[in-house]
Amino acid sequence: MSSIKIISLGSGAPDNITLRAFTALKESDIIFAPSGEAVRVLERLKPLEDLLLKVEQFDIPMKKDPSLATGVYDKVTQRLYDLYKEEQQVSLVTIGDAGIYSSAFKIVAELTKRGAKVEVIPGVPSFVAGMAQAMVPLVEQGQNLTLLSQINTPSDVLTPLANGSVVAIMKLSLYQESIKELLRQGNYPFTYMEWLGDEKQFLTSDLESFLSRTCPYFSIIVIKPQSV
Amino acid sequence: MSSIKIISLGSGAPDNITLRAFTALKESDIIFAPSGEAVRVLERLKPLEDLLLKVEQFDIPMKKDPSLATGVYDKVTQRLYDLYKEEQQVSLVTIGDAGIYSSAFKIVAELTKRGAKVEVIPGVPSFVAGMAQAMVPLVEQGQNLTLLSQINTPSDVLTPLANGSVVAIMKLSLYQESIKELLRQGNYPFTYMEWLGDEKQFLTSDLESFLSRTCPYFSIIVIKPQSV
Repeated sequence: MSSIKIISLGSGAPDNITLRAFTALKESDIIFAPSGEAVRVLERLKPLEDLLLKVEQFDIPMKKDPSLATGVYDKVTQRLYDLYKEEQQVSLVTIGDAGIYSSAFKIVAELTKRGAKVEVIPGVPSFVAGMAQAMVPLVEQGQNLTLLSQINTPSDVLTPLANGSVVAIMKLSLYQESIKELLRQGNYPFTYMEWLGDEKQFLTSDLESFLSRTCPYFSIIVIKPQSV
Repeated sequence: MSSIKIISLGSGAPDNITLRAFTALKESDIIFAPSGEAVRVLERLKPLEDLLLKVEQFDIPMKKDPSLATGVYDKVTQRLYDLYKEEQQVSLVTIGDAGIYSSAFKIVAELTKRGAKVEVIPGVPSFVAGMAQAMVPLVEQGQNLTLLSQINTPSDVLTPLANGSVVAIMKLSLYQESIKELLRQGNYPFTYMEWLGDEKQFLTSDLESFLSRTCPYFSIIVIKPQSV
């Protein structure tokens, strides 16, 4: 029996998916996809125009009440498992990489517990793809990288920067006011990215231009230590 | 005039390169590649069997005397630039992602300074690919990630772990003794990976099995905060 494939779609640009992900999508009978960005990547994936015929979309409710999301994951898990038992080639896609702040591993854990064979296909994380697009190295020799998905106090950002670490911040929209303040105060080189891989994509390293943006959910900033 | 392409090959497994990287390799007239792992990825890349005919290998001298490596980069830069001026489609490949501890951006900076058009194609970093292979999430909601390429004191590793951050260590071979000691002392879940994507690939989360390894240059460890 084949395995259930968890397919990382990468950064948002369809041609940033890997050959392994491409083959897995092509060979899937049914593809489960959270509605929104993941489906938009599949829509634009050439030369697999018929991909959407195989897609079963699901909505992840907004995170106010986590039990709602849990209910959706339970349903997706059950559908994946049932179809797998019927020897269908099923897959679940996720934006970015499945191992980085994705909920896919909750489903992986449950499927594995039930004895299903699962394969996880990695992808290019958005902060990696964005820096390539901006033509700025993410981390250079001798530097460390701190990847933050939540900020409790400004020192969560300032301490690693002071220690010479590059700081990448996901879920920036939640913290945009404090990050804008921090960049107003200190002279840190940065790269701001939103809607990577999409037509709406916008990148800037210019302070004024960043300060005037309202950061959407899909936005990231990479801040470098102060240049000496 | 087309652009000089800097192509990230990803983690070592040929099918972990992206569609964009694949197309860029196919369309290249001449591909510059550091000898060793990068060439081994190109060798194994189906269905592009004739790729090696287009490859011009170069050796990066070991890092004892950095001026030797600089000389090599200067030569590669000059060759890339000359061929670009002759309207050849040229590319430079790099293992992993070009923005993560790669020397490719030194060449990018020099080419850009001379007025050449350059495109950087991102790839799946090895620590991302390795965790997918091990079926362990890299960072979960609420966790931060600290990526280290050098360790000066044990606190560089212990402090982020104590703060609930996941720690990934590149260039592990240089620090293997202190990391082994740290894992002997504290009960940290970890994933150790060597020779990712290669036939020699080896992964383990078992302490005894890690302690008995001699870490090669291509080895990484991801350490999770102590489970409570």
